[in-house]
Amino acid sequence: MSAKVNDDLLTERRKCEFNVEELTNYLDGGAQATQNRRKLEDKVLSTKGLFDEVPEEYLSHKEKYENAVRKAVVYYKAMKEAEDPNQTEQERANATYRSLLHAAVFKDNSPFSLHLAMFIPAILGQADEEQKKYWMKRASKMEIIGTYAQTELGHGTFIRGLETTATYDPKTEEFVLHSPTLTAYKWWPGSLAHTANYCVVMAHLYINGKSCGIQPFIVQFRDEETHQPLPGIKLGEIGAKLGFNTVNNGFLGFDQHRIPRNRMLMKNAQVLKDGTFKRSPNSKLTYGTMVYVRVVIVNGMANQLARAVTIAVRYSAVRRQSELKPDAGEPQILDYVTQQHKLFIGIASSHAFTLTAKWLTRMYQKVTADLEKGNLDELPELHAIACCLKAVTTTDTSVLVERSRTSCGGHGYMLSSNLPQIYGLVTAACTYEGENTVLMLQTARSLVKALEQAQSGKRLSPTMSYLSEKVSSRLKWDNSIDGIVKGFRRVAYGKVESAMRSMRKYVRSGLGPEDAWNMSSVQLVAASEAHCRAFILSTYKSEVDRTSGSLSEPLKTVLYYLVELYATYWALERVGDLLLYTSISEADIRQLQDTYEDLLGKIRPNAVGLVDAFDFRDQILNSTLGAYDGRVYERLMEEALKSPLNAEPVNQSFHKYLKPFMQGKL
Amino acid sequence: MSAKVNDDLLTERRKCEFNVEELTNYLDGGAQATQNRRKLEDKVLSTKGLFDEVPEEYLSHKEKYENAVRKAVVYYKAMKEAEDPNQTEQERANATYRSLLHAAVFKDNSPFSLHLAMFIPAILGQADEEQKKYWMKRASKMEIIGTYAQTELGHGTFIRGLETTATYDPKTEEFVLHSPTLTAYKWWPGSLAHTANYCVVMAHLYINGKSCGIQPFIVQFRDEETHQPLPGIKLGEIGAKLGFNTVNNGFLGFDQHRIPRNRMLMKNAQVLKDGTFKRSPNSKLTYGTMVYVRVVIVNGMANQLARAVTIAVRYSAVRRQSELKPDAGEPQILDYVTQQHKLFIGIASSHAFTLTAKWLTRMYQKVTADLEKGNLDELPELHAIACCLKAVTTTDTSVLVERSRTSCGGHGYMLSSNLPQIYGLVTAACTYEGENTVLMLQTARSLVKALEQAQSGKRLSPTMSYLSEKVSSRLKWDNSIDGIVKGFRRVAYGKVESAMRSMRKYVRSGLGPEDAWNMSSVQLVAASEAHCRAFILSTYKSEVDRTSGSLSEPLKTVLYYLVELYATYWALERVGDLLLYTSISEADIRQLQDTYEDLLGKIRPNAVGLVDAFDFRDQILNSTLGAYDGRVYERLMEEALKSPLNAEPVNQSFHKYLKPFMQGKL
Repeated sequence: MSAKVNDDLLTERRKCEFNVEELTNYLDGGAQATQNRRKLEDKVLSTKGLFDEVPEEYLSHKEKYENAVRKAVVYYKAMKEAEDPNQTEQERANATYRSLLHAAVFKDNSPFSLHLAMFIPAILGQADEEQKKYWMKRASKMEIIGTYAQTELGHGTFIRGLETTATYDPKTEEFVLHSPTLTAYKWWPGSLAHTANYCVVMAHLYINGKSCGIQPFIVQFRDEETHQPLPGIKLGEIGAKLGFNTVNNGFLGFDQHRIPRNRMLMKNAQVLKDGTFKRSPNSKLTYGTMVYVRVVIVNGMANQLARAVTIAVRYSAVRRQSELKPDAGEPQILDYVTQQHKLFIGIASSHAFTLTAKWLTRMYQKVTADLEKGNLDELPELHAIACCLKAVTTTDTSVLVERSRTSCGGHGYMLSSNLPQIYGLVTAACTYEGENTVLMLQTARSLVKALEQAQSGKRLSPTMSYLSEKVSSRLKWDNSIDGIVKGFRRVAYGKVESAMRSMRKYVRSGLGPEDAWNMSSVQLVAASEAHCRAFILSTYKSEVDRTSGSLSEPLKTVLYYLVELYATYWALERVGDLLLYTSISEADIRQLQDTYEDLLGKIRPNAVGLVDAFDFRDQILNSTLGAYDGRVYERLMEEALKSPLNAEPVNQSFHKYLKPFMQGKL
Repeated sequence: MSAKVNDDLLTERRKCEFNVEELTNYLDGGAQATQNRRKLEDKVLSTKGLFDEVPEEYLSHKEKYENAVRKAVVYYKAMKEAEDPNQTEQERANATYRSLLHAAVFKDNSPFSLHLAMFIPAILGQADEEQKKYWMKRASKMEIIGTYAQTELGHGTFIRGLETTATYDPKTEEFVLHSPTLTAYKWWPGSLAHTANYCVVMAHLYINGKSCGIQPFIVQFRDEETHQPLPGIKLGEIGAKLGFNTVNNGFLGFDQHRIPRNRMLMKNAQVLKDGTFKRSPNSKLTYGTMVYVRVVIVNGMANQLARAVTIAVRYSAVRRQSELKPDAGEPQILDYVTQQHKLFIGIASSHAFTLTAKWLTRMYQKVTADLEKGNLDELPELHAIACCLKAVTTTDTSVLVERSRTSCGGHGYMLSSNLPQIYGLVTAACTYEGENTVLMLQTARSLVKALEQAQSGKRLSPTMSYLSEKVSSRLKWDNSIDGIVKGFRRVAYGKVESAMRSMRKYVRSGLGPEDAWNMSSVQLVAASEAHCRAFILSTYKSEVDRTSGSLSEPLKTVLYYLVELYATYWALERVGDLLLYTSISEADIRQLQDTYEDLLGKIRPNAVGLVDAFDFRDQILNSTLGAYDGRVYERLMEEALKSPLNAEPVNQSFHKYLKPFMQGKL
């Protein structure tokens, strides 16, 4: 687009105090990674047939799906063709790490996304070598399209409760898959309804009437030629949702459906021909994949939050409203300190989550390498931190995306802003891959265990080692970032201890330990949150320390403004906890408030530069309010005119209903 | 529906400790009001042609609108016919006060809603007697359908910034309406796009080149016979949104469009034939209507929140998941204390908002009566409290509706749960009729003024009189409800004072007073919030005190559990503020936490009864998860099967796109 850029945005870009490209490179992981990403985006986005004539929000539910399939086949072909054979797999991963390329094509999401995100990883993680060879050959070429079916109508996070059964029949060497109840129907898997023809099904294995736990099976459920559902398969889509409507979530029921023995994925547990069951050497081995998915989620939250805050900051630089001073004209709404308060924490949080995801990736790789050597020592720690990180980052992102949206006033409510759709995508992450409250309580369980171990003199793993430090009743407070990290750790310690005290009280009053746990669970969630806040803040700070050495001074300065903003924001948000567990004084709090207001002012001239540095092209932002050129009002009108209702001056409903009604002839 | 009721719900209803019908009557304002409401609902909802064959979420944007018009004409006719001529207007108002009848017909909202909610009130409030007679005759019969056009593409809350001009031409005795820029286009009015043919337009009046402020004009913009837009009118719809898609929000631009002089509504300001301008006697007279709309909003929030929490509580009683104790089976998720923590505050908040709205209505009626006598004394106070009440109740409701939704896990993400749509409706209220941050700062301005007056010895109006009480640096704390109210007032006082100190500091450092205000605005919003929390809490408590005298003991007990829960919840949420401004101790806080956990347990057996008492019939809940009989899973499947995608086993996109792609022939 060569149209004129909005004057206010031009001024903002001139005011920016650091080199935007340098920050883009930093976020991408180097100038080469930025280049590779842009090359990939150029190639893919120049493909014909990837975009819509009528914006998808005007289509019917069915048309949305059909249109998404039309684009998906073009998109995946283009992605395949754009692969640079000279790049290593790591370079390729880096190129897509911060890219939201699919967002340019699907304002919602792709009907194939489960194939790459879940089906292939499930085969890689759970198939034995022979199975892997056979299925990966077909899956990687997308000769077959797969999905992953775990959740049922009646069961989500609690996997042991799954009702689908797989009963081994040694006579025919087959498993019989069955859905004994309505609630046993698989429900939610993306791509399942009308797109995929294969899936990995998690089912409760029975051999000779004996339970052998939940196991994975690869199941064909549609004919490859006709796409008709196979006999014994009941199949459909689950209906319209808040988001992910083009993802084609489906239901699947089995009526005594038989599959050969080699369709159970046997990397871990195995079933021999005669029905002998060989248990998996370690039940924790599947944790690895779960953790990997959570790394992907934390990173995805950082990207989606960056996208929302880019839209809101640019709009706030263009939108002028009200008066700050009489007769001084209407200011940019970005000049209101309340607006800065709503938005700048979003920029800082996106940086914090990106860097935390990088730390988590390294930890994951290390633990996975240890696993290969049979060393499971660090797995519980990785699991505990991944649980609360997934929960806290998805919750924070949901809140901050909504805050970005409402900060754009009425126009943020328009689908053409793309903010409602981004919210629809991120809020789903609060539920999928482990419901957030359940995950927070898993981390809490680890914290309670760790504190008990510390009290009996055992050494703790690194992320929880602070629980074994000697604490005075109130930590001596200082307002530095490290002081705030220590403060949050003290709060976590204090809350775990207080929840444990509370549990003991309930046990003394006659409750069983499980009921006492339940009664204290509101406090336990708060303990987990404080632990996670301390972790994100310290990781954010230490990652910037570790990686900013070679950056220019102006950029480094702005990066540390954001770190300090993040720390100060959360200290002020949780000042009650700090007052309870540290020696923080009224004067300290006033000082923090002053620092916070001062930081907002320092970030203000860099705000547009900071969001420009996320480097989302207009096609990826997909937003009337957020485009690089700031032609907000022109785009709002251009998009409105695309509504099919605007194709005719008078809608047929006037003649059919309105006119007779108004003339009293109805 | 005569199907079997879910066993868990039956048990819950048996456990309930109070009389559900008694609470319903209490909320309605008496047994007669309940009866009238139910009679109205029976009559209207038995009308043919009011409901959908295909759920509206599967239709295209255009079809949704056409379908809504089809239903709207039937619905308004049925409402008219259901009017009981023997009832007084007050009885009729009572019958619809707690009803969400239109929600049974429109899962979204009605394309006529602006006619009744804004067009008619604008005529009543701003037309002179002759005009009122003429226009009300046509409007009340719906011979014409009207809307209210104030917001423009470039201007929302800041009314003085409106760009549409109305220039008086004394030669022809006409006003010339004009949109000088793109941003001057009217943008957002409901019904405007393809439904209404008249509207009240707010425009900047010029006479002889002199500004005469923003004035209301009644404008015809479509031909009554053909519905074609009139010459000089540019008209269309603004496009798809997060919600309100059947409301038909439109844009409207004027190209030198002429209207007769008598189309300016002249109750307040007047323009004589020769162009003489007679100013309105008081610019604050229009505040009355704004306040009225805010009363309606607070009441609407109470109802929508009640609807969301009814759905979530019933679902939580039916859904069983995970384990609390080994081998004890899966508990109802309502037994998890974290779930109670998410939901019970929603019930209490709905009660609090309903009772606050009743107080506000009385205050509004009193001030309006005073206005008629020329007494404007209490108007500023009413305005100040209505501003923060609108902002706090819409914000809280948005948060609590989302919390209800996510508490239902994945199934809350289904549109068939109706929770996403309820959120779409309530979150819009954070923006319309005054953006929430702007409103909070308006209340803050009154608070600052009041404290200044108190310090110079003046008497304050009742809702702010606490600012003139002598305060010690830390209020002596006690954990009673009255103690908590006093605590929040002390916090409000402290925060106003601290923001004023902060402003003085900024002024000393060289900023002008407006910039100092802006720098302190984050703190000022917090001051407003504390003031509003104290007000809601004390009003909730005093209204229950005032109205519960004749209630049975069991009901009274439960009502006070909720009041106490509300107080304790917010005390714990804002414990940092209380630590700063009162003498609350660690032991007090532990005690509050114990009380809170105890109250959750006491409310638990009454939870289903409490939501049953809201008395929403299934058609009004419109939810697979919330129906009275608790057939959650059956309904989810029944609704899914209505998706048009499920009408065929193989979608056409397989043959067109998927198969060639999978076979590598693309």
